[in-house]
Amino acid sequence: MAQQSNNATDTKALIDALGEGAAALRNKDFLLTWDHGPKAIEAVLDTATVLERAYKDGRSLRLFNGGLALSIFRDNSTRTRFAYGSAASLLGLSHQDLDEKKSQIAHGETVRETANMISFCAHSLGIRDDMYIHEGHSYMVEVAQALDEGFRDGVLPNRPAMVNLQCDLDHPTQTCADLLHLSNEFGGLKALKNKKIVMSWAYSPSYGKPLSVAQGVITLMTRFGANVTLAHPEGYDLLPETIDIAKRHAQSSGGKFEITHSMQDAFADADIVYPKSWAPFGVMEKRTELLRAKDDKALVDLERQCLAQNANHKDWECTNDLMKRTKGGKALYMHCLPADITGVSCKEGEVAADVFERYRLKTYHEASHKPYTIAAMILLSRCKDAQAFLANVMK
Amino acid sequence: MAQQSNNATDTKALIDALGEGAAALRNKDFLLTWDHGPKAIEAVLDTATVLERAYKDGRSLRLFNGGLALSIFRDNSTRTRFAYGSAASLLGLSHQDLDEKKSQIAHGETVRETANMISFCAHSLGIRDDMYIHEGHSYMVEVAQALDEGFRDGVLPNRPAMVNLQCDLDHPTQTCADLLHLSNEFGGLKALKNKKIVMSWAYSPSYGKPLSVAQGVITLMTRFGANVTLAHPEGYDLLPETIDIAKRHAQSSGGKFEITHSMQDAFADADIVYPKSWAPFGVMEKRTELLRAKDDKALVDLERQCLAQNANHKDWECTNDLMKRTKGGKALYMHCLPADITGVSCKEGEVAADVFERYRLKTYHEASHKPYTIAAMILLSRCKDAQAFLANVMK
Amino acid sequence: MAQQSNNATDTKALIDALGEGAAALRNKDFLLTWDHGPKAIEAVLDTATVLERAYKDGRSLRLFNGGLALSIFRDNSTRTRFAYGSAASLLGLSHQDLDEKKSQIAHGETVRETANMISFCAHSLGIRDDMYIHEGHSYMVEVAQALDEGFRDGVLPNRPAMVNLQCDLDHPTQTCADLLHLSNEFGGLKALKNKKIVMSWAYSPSYGKPLSVAQGVITLMTRFGANVTLAHPEGYDLLPETIDIAKRHAQSSGGKFEITHSMQDAFADADIVYPKSWAPFGVMEKRTELLRAKDDKALVDLERQCLAQNANHKDWECTNDLMKRTKGGKALYMHCLPADITGVSCKEGEVAADVFERYRLKTYHEASHKPYTIAAMILLSRCKDAQAFLANVMK
Repeated sequence: MAQQSNNATDTKALIDALGEGAAALRNKDFLLTWDHGPKAIEAVLDTATVLERAYKDGRSLRLFNGGLALSIFRDNSTRTRFAYGSAASLLGLSHQDLDEKKSQIAHGETVRETANMISFCAHSLGIRDDMYIHEGHSYMVEVAQALDEGFRDGVLPNRPAMVNLQCDLDHPTQTCADLLHLSNEFGGLKALKNKKIVMSWAYSPSYGKPLSVAQGVITLMTRFGANVTLAHPEGYDLLPETIDIAKRHAQSSGGKFEITHSMQDAFADADIVYPKSWAPFGVMEKRTELLRAKDDKALVDLERQCLAQNANHKDWECTNDLMKRTKGGKALYMHCLPADITGVSCKEGEVAADVFERYRLKTYHEASHKPYTIAAMILLSRCKDAQAFLANVMK
Repeated sequence: MAQQSNNATDTKALIDALGEGAAALRNKDFLLTWDHGPKAIEAVLDTATVLERAYKDGRSLRLFNGGLALSIFRDNSTRTRFAYGSAASLLGLSHQDLDEKKSQIAHGETVRETANMISFCAHSLGIRDDMYIHEGHSYMVEVAQALDEGFRDGVLPNRPAMVNLQCDLDHPTQTCADLLHLSNEFGGLKALKNKKIVMSWAYSPSYGKPLSVAQGVITLMTRFGANVTLAHPEGYDLLPETIDIAKRHAQSSGGKFEITHSMQDAFADADIVYPKSWAPFGVMEKRTELLRAKDDKALVDLERQCLAQNANHKDWECTNDLMKRTKGGKALYMHCLPADITGVSCKEGEVAADVFERYRLKTYHEASHKPYTIAAMILLSRCKDAQAFLANVMK
Repeated sequence: MAQQSNNATDTKALIDALGEGAAALRNKDFLLTWDHGPKAIEAVLDTATVLERAYKDGRSLRLFNGGLALSIFRDNSTRTRFAYGSAASLLGLSHQDLDEKKSQIAHGETVRETANMISFCAHSLGIRDDMYIHEGHSYMVEVAQALDEGFRDGVLPNRPAMVNLQCDLDHPTQTCADLLHLSNEFGGLKALKNKKIVMSWAYSPSYGKPLSVAQGVITLMTRFGANVTLAHPEGYDLLPETIDIAKRHAQSSGGKFEITHSMQDAFADADIVYPKSWAPFGVMEKRTELLRAKDDKALVDLERQCLAQNANHKDWECTNDLMKRTKGGKALYMHCLPADITGVSCKEGEVAADVFERYRLKTYHEASHKPYTIAAMILLSRCKDAQAFLANVMK
C-alpha cells in the first residue's frame, strides 16, 4: 500500500490491509530490516502513515496508560533522539534516557542486569550503538536476550519492544522513513519496481562516519524490485554480509544490485540518488581495536591516514553536472541529514550548495517520517490488535 | 481585568473578557512584550490566572494529546527551566531539551535545519539566549523563520509556539509574571496608574549579568500608566532602543519614564522598587566580541575591569534606610531571584538581609506565576478557541 | 497483609485493609521508615502490590492531571532514578531532575529558595543524598521545612510528597521493596516472625559505599518479629543511633537484634542473608570533613587506608560453603544490586559467582518492587482517599 492520497477511505484501506504484516511484528523487536518480511516492512510504513495523519488531525494515539520509553545513545544524536521522544509522547509513554556516564553501568555492572533494572515499567527500548564495527548489533542482541529472560521469569510484566536507532549493520528507523518518502514521492512501493536507486559514497572532511545508512539502504531498497547501484571509491567497501543480503534481495524481488567505483557511471539515468560519506570498514575495524586498547596515539594516526585517504576522492561530490546525468536531470536527491554541504557546512563536501538547496525541503520531508516510523515499530510490537486500535483512533 | 478575587464568577468574567487579546495572540510567538498590544498582555495575565486557579482545583488542563514542548537553554537556568517543564506537563506535552553540547548542532549543522528536525511533533519551543548582546533575539527570529518555512511547506504539521525564555533584549515570561504579581498586589492593572515603579541597578560582586530584566521591566510597566524611574550609576546604560520604547510607551499610556543616576532620588516616594544588578551594555558588547574571537586572556581582563568598576558602586544596595525613603516606607520590593543578599549569598550585594527577608515570601509569590504565564503564552498561540477551552476546563 | 496470591478477591482485601495505615501517611513525607508506624509500612507494601497488579493489567493509575515529579540526585543512580521515573509516569506526572551542576544552585542560591522555585507545580520530590555522613537527612529535613513554609504561605498550591531516595541514615524505597520481596517469598509479613535475617558486611574492592542499606535493613526488619543479626568486622560499625533503633524495634516486636564479628557465626541457621559492603562510619565522617575542606591529598590517603583496611577482610565473601551453614543450606540471598561478584564484576568481591547466579533472578524480583513502592509512597501522601482511588482503578 503506502499511497500518497490522504482521504479517510484510503486511511481505512491502509488499516484494513495491515493484517499479515502486523501479525508478523507482534512481540517482535525491530533490529534489522532483514529480520522481517516485506509485508512487515509495509505494515510499518502504512502504520506510520496512519499515525502521521491521525496526529495532524489532533487525534489521541495514547496506546499506553503511562510507562517508560527507554533510550540508550552510545553516540551523539539530535534528530533520532527527538524522533524517539516524539514517538514516546504520542503513544503515552515517558521518555527516559540512560546516560551511561551518569549511571552505574560504567562501574562494571553487567548489561544483562541493567537491561532488566531499567525496564520494570518500560514498553520500549531504543538503542543507538554505531561507533564500533561488529559491536552494536551484538550489544542489542545481548540486551534483547536479557529482556527475554526477565520477561520469561516474571521479572518484567511486559517485554519492551526494542528498536534499533542505528547500529554497525543497519539504521532501520532511517531507511524505513526513507522508503516511506520514496513511496510518497513515486506513488506507492510498487512504483519502485525497476527504478534506479544510487547509494553513493561522497567526500566528507570528517572521519569515522558509520556505514549503517548505506548498508541499510542497499539491503532494504533491493526488496521492492528496484535497481540498486552501490558506488564508492576502491577501499570503501561495506560489510560483506550486507552486500550478500542486498544481492539475495535483488534476486528474489526481481530487481538488480550492482557495485561500481565510478560516481559518474552510477548517476547515469538514475531515478534516485543518495550520496553520503562513510568510513571504510577496515578503518572502522582498526578503530574499534584501538579504542578498546585505549591507544590514543594510534587513533590520531589512523584519523590522519583516513582523512588523507578521503582527500583523494574530493571529486566524489554530488554536483549539478552529476545531477544532469540522472534521468531527465531530475533524479530525487536523498540524505539522512545533516549533509556536508560544500561552502555551507564545510569547504568541500558531499553535495554542492545549489543541488542541496533545490532538494532541502524534500530532505526535511524525508526526515519528517521518522517519529511515526518509530511509533509504528513500537505499536506493532506491543499492541494486541493494532488494526482495531488504529480503526478506533480514526473513528 | 487581572483581579485579585478568587471566586467562580470572577474567573468566568476573566474568560469572557479574553476575546480581543486572545484573538491577537492566536498563532503568534511571544518573543518581546512590545510585539503585542496591551490587550494581548492582559490576555496572557488573565489566562495565567485562570490556569493557576484551575490547577489548584486539580482540573485537567491537557490541551494536547501528547507531543513535545522543546527548549534550548544557551545559558544556565533553574526556575525558568522548571517553569517551562511545568507548563508543558499541565498542557499535556512532554518536555524535551536540546542540549547543544550533546547534539550535532555543534558540528556545523545549521540553525534552520535543526529547528525543523526537532519540531515534527512539537507544539512549543522555548529558548533562552541572553549571553550575547545583539545575538539572542536575532537567533530567535532566525528560528521562527525556519519554523514558518517548515510549516508553510508541510514539513511541520503544526507551527510550534515560540516563547522567549530570556534574550538580550527582553525577558517576557519574567516581566509578565512580575506584572501579574503587581496586579494581584495592587488590585488590578488599572491600579498601576501613577504608581511610581523604580527599576534600579544594584551592586553585585558578579560579572556579566544580562540586561534583559531591567529592559523588560521599563518597557512593560510604562504601558499601564505607571511612573517608571530607571536608576543606575553612569556607565550602566541599557540598550538605547529599549529606552526609546519605554519613553514611547509612557507617552501613549499617560505615564512617565525618567532616568536618574541616584538610587537615593529614585527611591523617594516609590510604590514599587526592583533593585537588581546588570552589566553595562558596552561591556556586554566587548564580551560578545571577545567570546567570538575566543580571546580568553582579554576576557579575563574584561572581567577584572568590570568587577572593579562595579566595586565603585557598592553603595547601590537596597538597605532599610533606602526603603524608608519610599512611600510610607512600605514600597513593594521585587526581584526575579536569585538575589545577591548581603551577608547571605555574598559579602556585599544587591539587598540588605533584613529587607530581603521581609519581602522574601512575596518574591516567591512573584515567581510562582511563571509556569502559568508560560502555559498561557503557549495556549493562546496554539488553541483554536482559548475561551471555549478555558470555559470547558472550569465547567 | 501483603500476601502472595494474585486474585481479585485478594486485591480487594488489600485495599480494604489500608484504612489506618493510609490515613497515617496522608500528607506525610517518607524520609525514614522509623518515622512511621508498622501499619503505615504495611500500607506502603500493600498499595505497592495493588499498583503492581493494576499496572500488569494495563490499568490507568493516573492520579494526577499532569504536574512534576522532581528529583535531586546528589550521587549516581541508575535503578532508583528509573524506578522514580517509572512511578512518576504511572501516576501521571512528568519527571524533572534538578541537575545541580547545570542549575544556579551552585552559585550560592539557598536550599530554601530553590526548593520552592522548582515546586510550584510539583506533586513529589525525591532526593538522594548519601555521600556525606550527618548531612543527607539534614538536607532533606531542611527542604521539607522550606516546602512546609511555601505551602503554608500559599506560594505552593500543593505540598509535594518528599521521598528519600537514599540518605546517610536510611534507604526506605530499597528496604520497603526488600520487605515486600520477603513478604512475597515467605507468604506474608507474619511469616517473618522468628526468621533469622543476617545483614552482613562483605568485602568489596571499592571505597566509600553508603551505610544506609545496612542501617535501613536492621531498623526495618526488626519491626516484624524477625531475629536480625548484624555481622561485620571490627571497625565497620554503623551509626550508633540506628543500632539503638534496631534494638528498640526488636524489643517491641518480640524479635531479636544481635551483633557479631563473625560471618561464619552469623550465617549459622539463617533464613535470609544480605551480604553487602559498606564503609566504616569513621571513614565516612573523616571523608565528609576532608571533602568540605577540599583537601584532595588527604582524601587520596584516606581512600588508600580504607582500601587497605578492607583488604584485611577478603574472607568476608558469601561463598557456597558459607551458604551451606544456613538453614537447610537454602537461605534466601538478597542484595540491593549491583553486587560485587567475584570473578565477574571484580577479582574478589562480596559474593561468589555461583551463589549469585543461583539467586540472580530473585534479586531482580526484589528490585522489581521499587517503582511501585515509590508510587505507593507518593500516592498515600498525596491522594485524598487512596482506598477509593485504588478501588476505582481495580473496578
